Amino acid sequence: MSLITLTTDFGTKDHFVGAVKGAIYSELPNAIIVDITHDISPFNITETAYILKNAYKSFPDNTIHIIGVDSELSIDNKHIAIELDNQFFICPDNGLISMIASEVNPTRIVEINIHNHTNSSFPVLDIFVKVASHIARGGNLNVIGKEISNYKKITEIQPKVNQQQTIIKGGVIYIDNYGNAITNINKKLFSSIGKGRNFIINASRYQFKKVLNGYNEIVDYTLPEEKRQYDGDKLALFNSADFLEIAIYRSNLKTVGGASTLLGLKYRDTITIEFEDIVKPEFVTINQ
Amino acid sequence: MSLITLTTDFGTKDHFVGAVKGAIYSELPNAIIVDITHDISPFNITETAYILKNAYKSFPDNTIHIIGVDSELSIDNKHIAIELDNQFFICPDNGLISMIASEVNPTRIVEINIHNHTNSSFPVLDIFVKVASHIARGGNLNVIGKEISNYKKITEIQPKVNQQQTIIKGGVIYIDNYGNAITNINKKLFSSIGKGRNFIINASRYQFKKVLNGYNEIVDYTLPEEKRQYDGDKLALFNSADFLEIAIYRSNLKTVGGASTLLGLKYRDTITIEFEDIVKPEFVTINQ
Amino acid sequence: MSLITLTTDFGTKDHFVGAVKGAIYSELPNAIIVDITHDISPFNITETAYILKNAYKSFPDNTIHIIGVDSELSIDNKHIAIELDNQFFICPDNGLISMIASEVNPTRIVEINIHNHTNSSFPVLDIFVKVASHIARGGNLNVIGKEISNYKKITEIQPKVNQQQTIIKGGVIYIDNYGNAITNINKKLFSSIGKGRNFIINASRYQFKKVLNGYNEIVDYTLPEEKRQYDGDKLALFNSADFLEIAIYRSNLKTVGGASTLLGLKYRDTITIEFEDIVKPEFVTINQ
Repeated sequence: MSLITLTTDFGTKDHFVGAVKGAIYSELPNAIIVDITHDISPFNITETAYILKNAYKSFPDNTIHIIGVDSELSIDNKHIAIELDNQFFICPDNGLISMIASEVNPTRIVEINIHNHTNSSFPVLDIFVKVASHIARGGNLNVIGKEISNYKKITEIQPKVNQQQTIIKGGVIYIDNYGNAITNINKKLFSSIGKGRNFIINASRYQFKKVLNGYNEIVDYTLPEEKRQYDGDKLALFNSADFLEIAIYRSNLKTVGGASTLLGLKYRDTITIEFEDIVKPEFVTINQ
Repeated sequence: MSLITLTTDFGTKDHFVGAVKGAIYSELPNAIIVDITHDISPFNITETAYILKNAYKSFPDNTIHIIGVDSELSIDNKHIAIELDNQFFICPDNGLISMIASEVNPTRIVEINIHNHTNSSFPVLDIFVKVASHIARGGNLNVIGKEISNYKKITEIQPKVNQQQTIIKGGVIYIDNYGNAITNINKKLFSSIGKGRNFIINASRYQFKKVLNGYNEIVDYTLPEEKRQYDGDKLALFNSADFLEIAIYRSNLKTVGGASTLLGLKYRDTITIEFEDIVKPEFVTINQ
Repeated sequence: MSLITLTTDFGTKDHFVGAVKGAIYSELPNAIIVDITHDISPFNITETAYILKNAYKSFPDNTIHIIGVDSELSIDNKHIAIELDNQFFICPDNGLISMIASEVNPTRIVEINIHNHTNSSFPVLDIFVKVASHIARGGNLNVIGKEISNYKKITEIQPKVNQQQTIIKGGVIYIDNYGNAITNINKKLFSSIGKGRNFIINASRYQFKKVLNGYNEIVDYTLPEEKRQYDGDKLALFNSADFLEIAIYRSNLKTVGGASTLLGLKYRDTITIEFEDIVKPEFVTINQ
């Protein structure tokens, strides 16, 4: 039995997803197929990376992830298969894997070379499913591709730190289903630079001096229930993926709005954290 | 083999649903996972109850339902697991279960107490999946929680009847995919109060004197085909879940509109049914 | 093990899809259920046919397809089950099957007649699931229906060719997830009429003199990378389903727009292809 996931920008209306699943079951009648998402914004690699990075770690070893975002083959856009963290990824070499693999090095990477016999305008169906089936049957990556040591790197979404280590400059990399704005600044970076100092987070024209560890931490449960009215309040927290997130308590994009609409935060907006610049006491010789 | 369903307000784009499924397959490689929906309006408990109540009855015994709507743990919002109607529900104690259990009493309720070792900001992933796996393996509810006899009740969505039993006052509890406005008045209540009397249904500024049992009952099939033009006509019917529904024949929210847009019916709007007040004949002594 | 697909206009929020899946697993605990789509525009048969036609061919033999679009039973709208291309389709007789079966003749068609005992306002749940389960268990179609030789035909969406064979007049039958406008003109018709002649495609007020076989064919890879800027350029191509498609290179309906928004192409718009009218040389007797 093989577990195969799909992450695409196909949407859920067109025939693409159905066709790909039919092709997988034609090859592997006992496969289990999981949709991670088909709602990636067309061609958006950053979104794909954020979603996949936070989803794949829950899957068991040997899960095979098919990624159909910007996957048309060209001399600029090869197809690759990667073994990483005991799982497999089949995707275009468009920088995506560099964001997923930023913490874990791939065990093996191959450039897929089974295209010779297939002139495809739907490579996820014609190529990626074949590669996934090969891997699911225990086949070696070298049979379907040529081992390579390098893949396309995208680094623009990494946060930056100034030399004095007083400012982290990051950006919004994702707006989630609740309108929360998720940044590329994770808890680890925040702690290692911040070292417990006071700070101010600047997001759009708003400021935050506290980062919560859960949405409900905003609530003061010592107050009587009718006075605990926080709906619509803004907050900063480390989300379940450990990234700094600017959120609205109990937001709803279709009614009251979320951080994206109420605070005007958009994909790629800058978020900065300014840490208190603690001046170390200097010993000065005093003229007497 | 275990059947596990998911009902959440996570949406289908973020990594949440994928991560939860990965975690389930890591625990239970042979599970079958069914998405009931991930499109609940954020934090909307009434919607959740309506959808789940009408979906769960089709599932076989021992199905395990995970509900991820407003599930962050707090002293106000415990996590519970319920056995009800030979099925299992894992959810926050936010009133939801009182709407599902309005007709069937739970066999057993426990307050989940396996949080001690897990400080989670994603309880569906960290807690609910563990509880579901425990139940799927045949484990007893008492192992993962403390038996309780009570759960939070929400009654605001029940329809009301006046003392003379001439008026039912209900409300719109759900707008469906076709824009139909579904009320909290079911066929059983309608019949037991109405007792065959004539009636007028008031919905926004529109009135209905007839309730159909199917959309097509609006069509007069004795007319020649070209004269049967009912598209866009309004009607009242008992839907497949036996609730009174105000609908537009062959509606489409993206083009011609539906009852919600054309008749201006919104979630929580009042719907009343006035029954004919049959005056019983009184014997009066006449002076002669 | 049975493979059952679902194609409906139910949307993914309401309880309908969940209820149908629950009913299938109640009958067939080992079934594999695949969602082709639930996002068909309400009652849109042309869309349903386009999607299903392009998806079903990837599925293995004996797959059972349940189609829940405009499926309320009436004297005008019978329920049928069809064996076609070694697969099974359960659907209303509303013209849909004539579009799917335009190239392949059905092996067998029955009018479903198990309604006698079920007065259903949700036939997909009450009738179609029973028929699917019967077929999945190897049952004969004749047990659940009466064999018929005919089904409702819809031909309006076929392209037309003039007598001189110089013009193909087709139309937009589908707008896909990227905003691409897909026509009813396929590669086979284009080639058999065009016979290699030059041509002009007219779509809205735009013209195309070339049809690509892949989106990336628009790119001139001999240029240096920074000069290859084609995002937003319009193009005509044969898509992966071999239909003529008017597209925008790297479109995104939510940001830059797609062919539907940028070129103003809508469902049912006319698209014409004018082929060069090559005048054959005639021999004329000349008076001397």
